Amino acid sequence: MTTFEHTTLPQRVLFGTGRAAQNLAAEVDRLGARAVMVIAGPTEQPIAQTVTERITVALRYDDVAPHVPIAKAEKARAAATEHGIDLLVCIGGGSTTGLAKAIALTTGLPIVAVPTTYAGSEATNVWGLTEDSRKSTGVDDRVLPVTVVYDADLTSSLPADLSVASGLNALAHSIDSMWAPRADPINQALAAEAIRTLNAGLPAVKADPDDIAGREDCLYGAYLSAVAFASAGSGMHHKICHVLGGAYNLPHAQTHAVVLPYVLAFLAPAAPAAEARIAAAFGTAHALDGLNTLRARLDAPTALADHGLTEDNIPEAVALILPFIPDTTPRQVTPGNLEVLLRAAWAGTQPSSEGFLS
Amino acid sequence: MTTFEHTTLPQRVLFGTGRAAQNLAAEVDRLGARAVMVIAGPTEQPIAQTVTERITVALRYDDVAPHVPIAKAEKARAAATEHGIDLLVCIGGGSTTGLAKAIALTTGLPIVAVPTTYAGSEATNVWGLTEDSRKSTGVDDRVLPVTVVYDADLTSSLPADLSVASGLNALAHSIDSMWAPRADPINQALAAEAIRTLNAGLPAVKADPDDIAGREDCLYGAYLSAVAFASAGSGMHHKICHVLGGAYNLPHAQTHAVVLPYVLAFLAPAAPAAEARIAAAFGTAHALDGLNTLRARLDAPTALADHGLTEDNIPEAVALILPFIPDTTPRQVTPGNLEVLLRAAWAGTQPSSEGFLS
Repeated sequence: MTTFEHTTLPQRVLFGTGRAAQNLAAEVDRLGARAVMVIAGPTEQPIAQTVTERITVALRYDDVAPHVPIAKAEKARAAATEHGIDLLVCIGGGSTTGLAKAIALTTGLPIVAVPTTYAGSEATNVWGLTEDSRKSTGVDDRVLPVTVVYDADLTSSLPADLSVASGLNALAHSIDSMWAPRADPINQALAAEAIRTLNAGLPAVKADPDDIAGREDCLYGAYLSAVAFASAGSGMHHKICHVLGGAYNLPHAQTHAVVLPYVLAFLAPAAPAAEARIAAAFGTAHALDGLNTLRARLDAPTALADHGLTEDNIPEAVALILPFIPDTTPRQVTPGNLEVLLRAAWAGTQPSSEGFLS
Repeated sequence: MTTFEHTTLPQRVLFGTGRAAQNLAAEVDRLGARAVMVIAGPTEQPIAQTVTERITVALRYDDVAPHVPIAKAEKARAAATEHGIDLLVCIGGGSTTGLAKAIALTTGLPIVAVPTTYAGSEATNVWGLTEDSRKSTGVDDRVLPVTVVYDADLTSSLPADLSVASGLNALAHSIDSMWAPRADPINQALAAEAIRTLNAGLPAVKADPDDIAGREDCLYGAYLSAVAFASAGSGMHHKICHVLGGAYNLPHAQTHAVVLPYVLAFLAPAAPAAEARIAAAFGTAHALDGLNTLRARLDAPTALADHGLTEDNIPEAVALILPFIPDTTPRQVTPGNLEVLLRAAWAGTQPSSEGFLS
C-alpha cells in the first residue's frame, strides 16, 4: 500500500533563454514592487546590470559571501530596512540566493530569484547561516522565492567543468530523492524527469559549452532536482557527503560526483522500484549502468583519494557517518558495509552491487 | 528553445488507504479549526460518518446537487456564516467539492477535501456555478483546497464501470495536457506519470473492483491528471467534448472515452515530442497503440453513434466546435479535417493518423 504526505510549495517559474530582463520586469510589475533591492556578488555585477536594465532599482547590494556569514546577513537586513525595500531580487548562485533568503527569514520580504548556476537553492524553502564557522540550516516557507526567472544565457559564464560538477550535484539531489526520508511518488516522478533531463543536458554542455539546448536541460533538470530534494529531504548519499566534506574539507562537487555511484550500487538491490525508475530515466537496463555511462562521458572524478581523503581516515569516517544515516534508508547500513563502500569510493574501484557485507 | 511560465499551486496531500479518519483529524488539528462544516451528499453520508468520527463537527450539510446551482451555493454560504464556520471539509465527488468551492469563493474559508471519485476537482483552483441552467466557471486560488486526504477505501462504493469511466476522464485530462494552451515541461512530466499510473490501475480495477493497489493507482493518477490539467488548461480534446456534451446532451464520461483516441490520432503526427512522451508512459512504441490497447482491455465505448450523436449532427457540430479550438493546438484544425475526425468518432472506425485532410 502507498502511504505518503506531500507538501507542494507555491512558486512561479518563468523560463526563457534571453528573456530574463523582460521576465523580471514583468514580474516586478505584477508584484507591484516599488523599492527593489538587487543582490548580486561582485563577479555577478555584469550579468546583474543586464538583467535589471528594465526595472527601477532602489538599492544594489554586492556584499555576498559563501555560506552566508551571520554578520553579512545582519548588515544586509539593516540595508533593506533602511531603504524601505519591498522586493528582493537575487541574481547569482547559491551564496547570493542564500543572502536573499537570510533577509527574507527575518523581514518576510518576497524574493524573485534569477539563478546563474545549477545550485537549485532558488526552488527550496531551506535557509543556511554561518556563525563562527558553524553552519546552521532550517526550513521556513518565507525564504522560498515567490518567482524564479530562469535564463540559460546567464549560465554561459559558468565554465564547462563547473557546469558538469554543478550538474552532477543536481543529479545527486534527484537520485538521493528516490529513497530519502520523505520520498514519495510525487517527488520521485519529478526526480525521474530531472535525471532524464540532466542525462541529456550534461553531455551536451560538456561537448559544447555554448549548446543552449543543453544548458536549458541542465537548468530545468537542476530546478526539478531541487524541488524533489526539498520535498524528499537528505538521503544516505547527502549525509555521507556532508560528513566527509565537513570532517576532511573535501571539495563539495567532486565528493558528490565520486560517492553517488557507490551509494546507488549499495542501495539499488534493496530498492528495486527506485532502481527501475532511475534506469528508465537513464534509458538503460540498470540504473548503475546509466550513471556509470554518464560519468564516463563527463570524465567525472572517480576516487576520493584524488580529492583529499586518506585511507587512514576511513575508519573514523565510518564512525562519524553512521549516526547520520536516515532510519528510512532501504538497506541496513552497518560499520562493515559502510566501510566497504567508503574504501571503494576512496580507491575508485568500479562501482558494483556485489561484495557488500550484508 | 524552451519558453514557459508555470505556476505551482500550494497543496498538502495525505495519501493512505484506510487512513482518512486519522489523517483528517490530524489536519483539522494542524489547522487549528474550531468550527468544522462537513459537506457530503445524502448518498455519501455513510462514508462521511466514518471519515469524521475522530473530529468535532459544528455543522453537517447534505444539500448537494450537480453543477452547483447558485441558489444552493447561497444557502450553503449562509449556513457557514450562521454557524461561524472556520473550516470546510467536503467528502464526495465533483459536486460536493464544487459546493465547498462555491462557499470558499465568497467567504475565503479553507477547504480540506476528501474525494471519493477520480473527478480531480480537489486538486484545482477552478470553480463552477450554474444559474438558469447556464454554467459559469472561473479560476480563483481561494477555492483550491489547502489539503486533500486520499483514501482508496473510500472509492470502493464506486462501481467498476463508473471507476473505469471516471478514470478514462482523468486519462483525457493528462493526454490533453500534452498540447493544451499552457502545456509546459512540468505539467507534461506530471501528465506522463499520471498516464503511466492510470494505465496500470484501470485494468486492475476493471479485473477486480476490490484491487486496492489498482484503486490507489487510479486515485493517484487522477490527482496528478488534475494538477497537470489545471496548469495546462483545456486542449482540443476537452473543447470538442464540452461542445458535444452541451449541444447534444451526450454523456460526459463516454464522450471523453470515445473522442480521445481520435484526437490523439489527429495530433500525434504534429506533436512528435508529446507523442513520444505518451508512448513512453504507456510503454508502447506508439502513443495510439498504448491508448487503443488500454481501451480494449477496459471495453471502453467506441462510437458516439451509440451515445446519442446522429450522423446529421456532424456538420453543425463541426461549426460549433471550430471557434473553441485553441490557437496553440499543434496542428491546424479545419472544417475538413475536423469533420473526418468526428465522422470516425461517430462511426467508431479504428482510430488512425491516416486519412485526415491537411
